[in-house]
Amino acid sequence: RTDSDRLWEALMEMAKLGATPKGGVNRQALTDLERQGRDLFIQWCRAEGCTIRIDNIGNIFARREGSDPNAKTVMAGSHLDSQPTGGKYDGCFGVLSGLEVIRTLNQHNITTQSPIEVVAWTNEEGCRFPPCMMGSGVFSGELEFDAMMARTDADGVTVSDALDAIHYRGCDSVSPDEIKAYFEPHIEQGPILEDTDTTIGVVIGGLGQKWFDLTLTGLEAHAGPTPMNLRRDAMMGAAEVTQALNRIAFEHQPHGRGTVGCMTLHPGSRNVIPGQVKMTLDMRHWEPEALIAMGKAVAAAVEDICQRHGLAYELTPTADFAPEHFNKECVDAVREGAKQLGLSHMDIISGAGHDAMFVGRVAPAAMIFIPCKDGISHNEIESATPEHVHAGCNVLLHAMLDAAGL
Amino acid sequence: RTDSDRLWEALMEMAKLGATPKGGVNRQALTDLERQGRDLFIQWCRAEGCTIRIDNIGNIFARREGSDPNAKTVMAGSHLDSQPTGGKYDGCFGVLSGLEVIRTLNQHNITTQSPIEVVAWTNEEGCRFPPCMMGSGVFSGELEFDAMMARTDADGVTVSDALDAIHYRGCDSVSPDEIKAYFEPHIEQGPILEDTDTTIGVVIGGLGQKWFDLTLTGLEAHAGPTPMNLRRDAMMGAAEVTQALNRIAFEHQPHGRGTVGCMTLHPGSRNVIPGQVKMTLDMRHWEPEALIAMGKAVAAAVEDICQRHGLAYELTPTADFAPEHFNKECVDAVREGAKQLGLSHMDIISGAGHDAMFVGRVAPAAMIFIPCKDGISHNEIESATPEHVHAGCNVLLHAMLDAAGL
Ligand SMILES: NC(=O)NCCC(=O)O
Ligand SMILES: NC(=O)NCCC(=O)O
Repeated sequence: RTDSDRLWEALMEMAKLGATPKGGVNRQALTDLERQGRDLFIQWCRAEGCTIRIDNIGNIFARREGSDPNAKTVMAGSHLDSQPTGGKYDGCFGVLSGLEVIRTLNQHNITTQSPIEVVAWTNEEGCRFPPCMMGSGVFSGELEFDAMMARTDADGVTVSDALDAIHYRGCDSVSPDEIKAYFEPHIEQGPILEDTDTTIGVVIGGLGQKWFDLTLTGLEAHAGPTPMNLRRDAMMGAAEVTQALNRIAFEHQPHGRGTVGCMTLHPGSRNVIPGQVKMTLDMRHWEPEALIAMGKAVAAAVEDICQRHGLAYELTPTADFAPEHFNKECVDAVREGAKQLGLSHMDIISGAGHDAMFVGRVAPAAMIFIPCKDGISHNEIESATPEHVHAGCNVLLHAMLDAAGL
Repeated sequence: RTDSDRLWEALMEMAKLGATPKGGVNRQALTDLERQGRDLFIQWCRAEGCTIRIDNIGNIFARREGSDPNAKTVMAGSHLDSQPTGGKYDGCFGVLSGLEVIRTLNQHNITTQSPIEVVAWTNEEGCRFPPCMMGSGVFSGELEFDAMMARTDADGVTVSDALDAIHYRGCDSVSPDEIKAYFEPHIEQGPILEDTDTTIGVVIGGLGQKWFDLTLTGLEAHAGPTPMNLRRDAMMGAAEVTQALNRIAFEHQPHGRGTVGCMTLHPGSRNVIPGQVKMTLDMRHWEPEALIAMGKAVAAAVEDICQRHGLAYELTPTADFAPEHFNKECVDAVREGAKQLGLSHMDIISGAGHDAMFVGRVAPAAMIFIPCKDGISHNEIESATPEHVHAGCNVLLHAMLDAAGL
C-alpha cells in the first residue's frame, strides 16, 4: 500500500504554487509558477534517486531503474499545468501518485524488473496555448513539433519563447518504444462515479475532440440610428452559433458535448453594434462518425448564420482528436487492481482529454479515475477526498507492479 | 454664409487628437486626449474674444456677448468625446459649427441682440462612463450630480477622479433658464438622408433609451465530462438573451432597436463552461409605451432564460431616457433656414441620443442633421462631405440669427 498522508501532503504542497483565493490553482502552462511546480517535482524525484530526462517540448521523465537492463519501462504520469481557475487535483493527482509509487517502492526496498518512470507532460490543459495535451501529442507524433512551437497565447507569446523563458526546452530524446505500459490516474471531472457511489473508474477510452477558433466580421455601427434590418451585427451571429453548437450537441446524446468558452467583442462599446466577434468552439463525442457529423453540422450552421446576417467568417481548427480506446491488457490491469483491493469500480468513458489518449496511440495505456465532488472540475472549488486519492494511488501501484514484474 | 474651408480645417485639426490608423478617432471622455481637445477648443474660442465658463461636471460654455444685456442666450453645441473606434464628425461637427458661427459673426462685425454661446458637453458617448449625455443630463437636472460623479469606467476610475485628473471640474454655475434657444448640428449616424438624397434633416425628436448591465451566473465546469443536461452554462444564457433582445426589437418596428455591445466571459477558457457572463443591453424606441414594453419583455425573457438554465442574474439599469419631442419654434427655425438656403430637407427622428434631448426638457431646442457616408457612425470609417458640413453650419447660422435677432 502507498502512504496516504505522504501523497496528500505532496498534493497540498504543490497546490501552494499558484494558489487562488477560492482554494483553487492558477498555474497555467509554461508560466513562471508552473516552472516552480516543475522544479519542485524534479527536486522530489531526485531525492528518491531518480534520473531526470527532459525532451524538446519540456516533458519531464523521472526514472527509477529496474533489475532487467533490457526491459521496457512502466510509466505513470499526468500534468502539472492548470486552468486559470483550476483545482488542486486535475493533473497533479496523476503525477504525484506516480511519485508516491516510487517513494513506496523505495521505502520497502522493492526492486521491479522493468524501470518505473513518472512523467509530467507539458501543457495538457491547452487553455493558454491550444491544443490540449500538447506535450504528449508531440511525444506520440500526433502533433507536429514545429507547428506546436509556433502556437501563441492571447498575448502573442509562442510556445517556443515560453519554453525558453522557463528554461525547460530539454535535449533528451525519449521514445514511445521504450514504454511497456502507461497508467494515468486522474479525477473523473464528471458526476458519474459520485452519483453511483463508486470509488474507481476503469477508463476504457475517451471522447474525441474538435476545437475551432471562429472570427465573425460584420460592420460596427451606431446602436441607435441603425435599423435592425440593415445591421451586420457580429454578436447576433455569435449568439446563433452558440445556440447551434449547443443544439447539435444535444442532438448527439448521450456522448455529444458543445461549449463556447471564450468570446471577445470588438470594439466592445455598449452603444456600438459589434463589428467583430472572436470565439472558441469545443465539441466532443465518443463515436468517430458522430464527431465528424457534429463538426460538419456546426460548419454548415456557421455558413448559414453568416449568410443570413451578412457576416464574413474564418473557422480555424485548433484541435482535432479522434476518440481513443485504451489497450485491453492495461484496462484489465486497472480493473484487476481495483478488484484485489476490494474497491468498488465500474467501466467509464472519459469526457476530458488526457495525455493517456495520445500515449495510447503509440504504446499500451489506460487510466484510473476517482470521484471528485459534485463532478466539478476546471473550477477552483474542485475537490476530492484523501480516501479516494489514496485508493486511486493504490490501484496505480497494483497495475504498475503487475506490468513491471518483481 | 459661414466659411467652409475654415470649418473643415478646424474639424481636421481636432481629428488629429486621438487619430486612429483607420482614419477615425479614439478620444474617450475625460482622458488626456479629450483634455487636449478641450484645451484646443477653449484656445480657439478665447482667440475670438469669448469668455469661458466651466461647470461642475466639466461642460464648457464659450460666450460672445450680444447688444441686449438682459437677453437670454442663443446656444449651439455638442461634444468633443468619441467612441473607442469613433469618427471625426460625431460631436465635433456640432461644437465646431458653433465656433464657426462666432468666427463668421466676428469676421463680418455682426452684433446680435442675444448673446451667442457655444457649448461642449461632457461625456456624451457614455461608452467609458454610462450613461450617455452625462454632461447635459446633469445640466438639465435629468441626471443626479452625485450619482454621476460616482460612476466608474471598466478600470474602476470614477467620473469625479477622471474630471480632477484633467483639471476640468469647474465652479461656474450655468442655468438652463439663461437659454433662449439651443441648436445642435450633428451627422445623422443613420442611412435615411443619404438614401433619399437629402442635405438637411430637420430633427423633430429622438428615440428614448433603456440601458442595462446584466450579469449571468452559472457554474463553471469542464467542457468535456459535464453532460449537456447538467450544465449551468452562463454563455448559453447570454446567447439566448442576445437573441431575445433582438427578437423584441424586431417585434417593435420600425422604431425598435436592441443591441448587445459588450460581453465578458469568466473564466474565458476554451475548455471551461463559462461560470459567469457580464453583458450590456441597449434598447430604444420612439413611443414611450413601446419602450416600456420592450424593457418589460426583456426583463421577462431574462427571468425565463435564467430559470431554464439554472442561472442567477443581476439586471441593473444604467440609463433610462424617455423619447424627446423638440420645441416647435426651434424646429421651424431649422426648417426655415434650410428653405431660405435652398437646401433639400426632410423631417427626421434621431435614433441616437443627443445632448439636445436633455437640453430640450428645460429649454427650447432642436437639431440639424446632415448625411454621413453609408449611414455609418461609431466606426473609424465615419465620413461626411465638406459640402454637407458647410450646409449644416449655414442652417445653424440662419437658425441662430433668427433666434438671437440683430
Ligand atoms: N483533463 C483535462 O482537464 N484536460 C484538459 C483538456 C480537455 O479539455 O479535455
Ligand atoms: N450621438 C451619439 O452618438 N450619442 C451617443 C449616445 C447614444 O448611444 O445614443
